[in-house]
Amino acid sequence: MAYNKSINQKTHRGTAAKTRAPKAQQPKLKVIPLGGLHEIGKNITAFEYEDEILVVDCGVAFPEDDMLGIDLVIPDFSYLVKNKDKLVGIALTHGHEDHIGSLPYLLREVKVPIYGTRLTIGLVETKLKEHNLLGSTERINVNAGETVKLGKYFKVEFIRSNHSIADAVALAITTPAGVVIHSGDFKVDYTPVQGEPIDLQKLAEYGRKGVLLFMCESTNVERPGYTMSESTIGKIFEEIFENSADQRIMVATFSSNIDRIQQIINCASARDRKVCVVGRSMTNVVKAARELGYISYKEGTFIEPAELKNYEDNRLVIITTGSQGETMSALSRIASNEHKQIEVKPGDKIIISASPIPGNEKNVSHVINELLKKGADVIYDGLMDVHVSGHARQEEIKLLHALIKPKYFMPVHGEYKMLKTHENLARTMGMDKNNIFVMANGDMLELNSRSAKHTVGAVTSGQVFVDGLGVGDVGNIVLRDRRHLSQDGLMIVVVVMDTYTGAVLRGPDIISRGFVYVRESEELISEAREAVREALDECRGHAGGSEWSYCKTVIKDTLRDYLWKKTKRSPMILPIIMPVEL
Amino acid sequence: MAYNKSINQKTHRGTAAKTRAPKAQQPKLKVIPLGGLHEIGKNITAFEYEDEILVVDCGVAFPEDDMLGIDLVIPDFSYLVKNKDKLVGIALTHGHEDHIGSLPYLLREVKVPIYGTRLTIGLVETKLKEHNLLGSTERINVNAGETVKLGKYFKVEFIRSNHSIADAVALAITTPAGVVIHSGDFKVDYTPVQGEPIDLQKLAEYGRKGVLLFMCESTNVERPGYTMSESTIGKIFEEIFENSADQRIMVATFSSNIDRIQQIINCASARDRKVCVVGRSMTNVVKAARELGYISYKEGTFIEPAELKNYEDNRLVIITTGSQGETMSALSRIASNEHKQIEVKPGDKIIISASPIPGNEKNVSHVINELLKKGADVIYDGLMDVHVSGHARQEEIKLLHALIKPKYFMPVHGEYKMLKTHENLARTMGMDKNNIFVMANGDMLELNSRSAKHTVGAVTSGQVFVDGLGVGDVGNIVLRDRRHLSQDGLMIVVVVMDTYTGAVLRGPDIISRGFVYVRESEELISEAREAVREALDECRGHAGGSEWSYCKTVIKDTLRDYLWKKTKRSPMILPIIMPVEL
Repeated sequence: MAYNKSINQKTHRGTAAKTRAPKAQQPKLKVIPLGGLHEIGKNITAFEYEDEILVVDCGVAFPEDDMLGIDLVIPDFSYLVKNKDKLVGIALTHGHEDHIGSLPYLLREVKVPIYGTRLTIGLVETKLKEHNLLGSTERINVNAGETVKLGKYFKVEFIRSNHSIADAVALAITTPAGVVIHSGDFKVDYTPVQGEPIDLQKLAEYGRKGVLLFMCESTNVERPGYTMSESTIGKIFEEIFENSADQRIMVATFSSNIDRIQQIINCASARDRKVCVVGRSMTNVVKAARELGYISYKEGTFIEPAELKNYEDNRLVIITTGSQGETMSALSRIASNEHKQIEVKPGDKIIISASPIPGNEKNVSHVINELLKKGADVIYDGLMDVHVSGHARQEEIKLLHALIKPKYFMPVHGEYKMLKTHENLARTMGMDKNNIFVMANGDMLELNSRSAKHTVGAVTSGQVFVDGLGVGDVGNIVLRDRRHLSQDGLMIVVVVMDTYTGAVLRGPDIISRGFVYVRESEELISEAREAVREALDECRGHAGGSEWSYCKTVIKDTLRDYLWKKTKRSPMILPIIMPVEL
Repeated sequence: MAYNKSINQKTHRGTAAKTRAPKAQQPKLKVIPLGGLHEIGKNITAFEYEDEILVVDCGVAFPEDDMLGIDLVIPDFSYLVKNKDKLVGIALTHGHEDHIGSLPYLLREVKVPIYGTRLTIGLVETKLKEHNLLGSTERINVNAGETVKLGKYFKVEFIRSNHSIADAVALAITTPAGVVIHSGDFKVDYTPVQGEPIDLQKLAEYGRKGVLLFMCESTNVERPGYTMSESTIGKIFEEIFENSADQRIMVATFSSNIDRIQQIINCASARDRKVCVVGRSMTNVVKAARELGYISYKEGTFIEPAELKNYEDNRLVIITTGSQGETMSALSRIASNEHKQIEVKPGDKIIISASPIPGNEKNVSHVINELLKKGADVIYDGLMDVHVSGHARQEEIKLLHALIKPKYFMPVHGEYKMLKTHENLARTMGMDKNNIFVMANGDMLELNSRSAKHTVGAVTSGQVFVDGLGVGDVGNIVLRDRRHLSQDGLMIVVVVMDTYTGAVLRGPDIISRGFVYVRESEELISEAREAVREALDECRGHAGGSEWSYCKTVIKDTLRDYLWKKTKRSPMILPIIMPVEL
């Protein structure tokens, strides 16, 4: 297979083309992934040519289990902030959080216009409104099939694609150094619920003319075969609705999967059932999708939760969030009888139309168990095919490679093992290992039609934690303390001492939290106090200034040894000495 | 299908049979699951007849994510301890932790003989030795196929079975009220690596004579079809070994899966490779299995880690723990370059011969990513079929139902959704819903050939946390504190005050941990201190006794409101007042 076609070079700057600059001088395109590699989440890539930078996507990641108390993880933007005068725009592939969620945090620091399809921009606007950034941010709607020019060097064509959210696109980025195709997140759906299949002709056309670099997502690259069409789910829903004629039906799914929601509405309308939307993000998205015309429905289809009581069970469908078992979601609260408006009851038919994202299995199982205990029929992935992925599997990925035939290839959007599997897949299709770049965040690929150079760790990259209002104020030290506290709790020792003599004026008092249940461990605590008291005797004469830290160390060591011997636990020990002048 | 055969009643007590006691007086067998229902783990069931109790299995569960700092979860034994004079024995189905792991904790409280097959007892002995309980505990080896009499009423036949550990059995428990078949954990393996298939003839014979109650495990009941034979893995290993002739091979699997280990040894020996066993539990189990004759090998097969350097890569196989990505396991340490004896290098072939147990997916992925980054080839479940389950799927479970045809059925060993799916499976085979008992831990089923009665919450049951040396001293209050501390850390405020006047003699000092990185948040902390100082002014005149708690509440409320406003976080706030007499 020929991967070495000549590249369609469009030189926007006259000089280089006219004077035939020496080889070393030919400017290169720099491709710098700042997120999304070796991880699932916070996708963001910078494309830099001369004095201009185009950014593609700007997503968040959700915290790992050991990131205790963290709400969100965003990319380290310092490279973009440092080069903010170069930024010409942010182009978005679709409206999922891992592609748009970090925008408010970047837009606090830099001013740059946002380009996206209508639904994507709609979802971004909701987000910017929440962060009071709507007024200060320019948004440009681009239809799939259109091309926009950004700065002097970048032309970006938005290419219709398929994904688990409507209005997803791939991007063709034309630069003086050549064309880059960025797949965004995609699947090849020949029978999508709305709109058309991914524009394979357009991708083929770019491929025929010559593509310098293909950046392709890798989420499902470990899975053989094809991902089923979203519309197959509609048929399963039809079947379930047929078999549940007398039951109230509740469906939990991802709020952003508008096509899924559309299919539920279709099934409901065909049977004259009313649709009630529950859960904050589901309500927001359905509202936006209705306003933007992404959901079609008969007048009077939707009802409010307060109206549920006016209808018989067999006239109702409830669409809700919570398909991942998230603790605060509507479905979780319904399952645990904590929802204000909806109570699950025997005979309810509940469809969980999603697969658990890795890490969520136990939460999802918990919700299913609770719903079953309350007598509901629950249909979940595994029992029936009530979910399909939005990501391409191996055969679809191969199709794009075959259409695009790039000179260079960079697998993106995935853990390292997925990027490596994707590399192997490209090699089985005949691609040269030297033309494939498995990179890490912060690496840089400098390329043109003649060569490509991979620099490891070229720019600052990393993850920044968002906790409450704080962005970046929780780092590894704070997390290490949270982990320590979470394992064995803490023990505080407070002593008031004479500033000059070191005599104990009050204490030692011992306060513990998360260590043992104090009432049942009085003996342990009082023995610990005795041990500290003896240790303090040792400290006599160590009053004042740096001597206090000697005393603290003695207290800490004594207590640590005593508690380990007695309990084989290591709570955090905090000795506090309060010196007082008498 | 006929589920209503008459029951084979053997009355061990002469009286009832001779005098034909009135119906209401006929003693019933009480079956009381104390663990293993609505959960995966800590399997234990009590069978009580008149003044005797037989216990089957005694397992642990591993802590859920929200059980911070907990090492193990054991069943609440209080019912057994209260009735310790009735205990006639503990019969074990196999040697997995979720079936034997709680024994040391029960045996601290009661003295009772243990019955099990040779490998099971061997593993129990290792455990009892660690807890200094070996001398005080009677162990009885029972071969599969043998029957033992326990007390006056119980006869237990150990029936050969197949599972992911050698020497697993099902139990036929004959009581005056009828026969109970307990499946233990099983699969139907017609071509096991060692030994023979599960004794289907014996189960059929019991079924033909009449079984009162069938208790059947439900782990894989949601999965259609059959579980593949363990020996299919050997064929895959052969293939991988053939394709890795020049590479060092490393295989990670469950230490208890002796048949899997045997197959690795077979592949190694056939190619004149030495075998090195790494990881504490793997070393222990292989040692025990070699001593008991459960592993066959040529003399000189095994080498110590220190000898690895004496052999070429293509002469080596390393068998290791860590197939679940456990942080402290050998494979994790190898992957992160923290293992003392083994360093992973480019060209190593590493097989992860296990599926991630739900909840472990991310850890396993992390280890795979790290190994790949160091240049190893990694083969994991999903890429190739390098693992099979030890648990029966639907068709195997149906086979046992068809052979045993019990009067009553109780699904065990599974989450609620699995027990319900198992109930549905039994109903599709024609069983009467009224004869199926989906129970919870602590429920009681009283039954004989005439009737069965399900009592909800009949006895005390529950979970007890083991943390270090402490058993049961960490309860919900301690866990709630750990959770709180893990989310936003803590802030301590210490003030020394005059006992009589309430005048501040020193402080307020503020110490925080796990909240913000203090050096970068000095302003926040000093403003917080100022807020407390102002609050303390309010407290003037509230010195002494219960008044201190008023002051503490004021400090706490002030600080909570201030921090929430500034950070949208809620650290644990601990106000400490130290009154001093001047």
